[in-house]
Amino acid sequence: MTISMYQASVPPVMRCLHNLINILQKGDAHAEAKKIDPSVLINSRLYPDMYPLSKQIQIASDITRKGLARLASVEAPSMVDDETTFQQLIDRLKNTIAYLETITPAQIDGTEHKHISLPIGKHTIEFEGMPYLATFILPNLYFHATTAYNILRHSGVELGKIDFLGKP
Amino acid sequence: MTISMYQASVPPVMRCLHNLINILQKGDAHAEAKKIDPSVLINSRLYPDMYPLSKQIQIASDITRKGLARLASVEAPSMVDDETTFQQLIDRLKNTIAYLETITPAQIDGTEHKHISLPIGKHTIEFEGMPYLATFILPNLYFHATTAYNILRHSGVELGKIDFLGKP
Repeated sequence: MTISMYQASVPPVMRCLHNLINILQKGDAHAEAKKIDPSVLINSRLYPDMYPLSKQIQIASDITRKGLARLASVEAPSMVDDETTFQQLIDRLKNTIAYLETITPAQIDGTEHKHISLPIGKHTIEFEGMPYLATFILPNLYFHATTAYNILRHSGVELGKIDFLGKP
Repeated sequence: MTISMYQASVPPVMRCLHNLINILQKGDAHAEAKKIDPSVLINSRLYPDMYPLSKQIQIASDITRKGLARLASVEAPSMVDDETTFQQLIDRLKNTIAYLETITPAQIDGTEHKHISLPIGKHTIEFEGMPYLATFILPNLYFHATTAYNILRHSGVELGKIDFLGKP
């Protein structure tokens, strides 16, 4: 028995993005309950040269939208990084999920050895499909999702690991 | 074409643990260079009721060691949570990797529908093997690895995402 590239990619990615929506909703509710300007949380970062919460969400969207599109040999829709409210960030993730729902198993399955050229700044990184998924897309997504969680947690939002993992 | 449970689990997990060793080494070097008592970093946390760095590493070890052993139907060695230095935490990860190296593809492959009963506190969570890997082991590992990174980054250690992802 084996598993497919689709099973290893689209469902866990969508699950993480759904959990991230829930985390942002809790951040939004916390700001309202504590009468904190939501932009304070949205612009928070863990260190001066780290990205703020908004950028963590934008990158989580970009990595997965563009990454899975690249595996599927389709062009991902571009998104403008102009979100300034929790609702806009939540909508960005909802639109990302809606896009991922259009990608079919037939488009992703069989891409484990597919050649992927990833332009990063001045460089291009070459991957096969499976390492691209397992060592780039997934850890990158979880990195930014966890950092978003940590920014809110560090700001006093009451979150637990179950919010990050989602209900089993 | 398809991928195997082993490919989707052991290599990316070992890669993440190797990267975490590198991150801890940079934390250790930072403490030495800045004449910071290393225990300050090891006991740092992002919020008073979050776990400190040491516990993040211990959990990253436990989740993967016990998780992959459970998939492979073997008993993982227990480890005592008594690390108080960077070197001890690094050794914990090295011992975890050495253990994972003993798990073979034949033990993990074909476990995608295997029934997993996971005792958590008073409850037991039931999984099939693939969701156990994709929605529990991997996100949990990356959650604690990222939080370890964020604790050190928040403490001023110079780290970049390449330290977390590792060289392609």
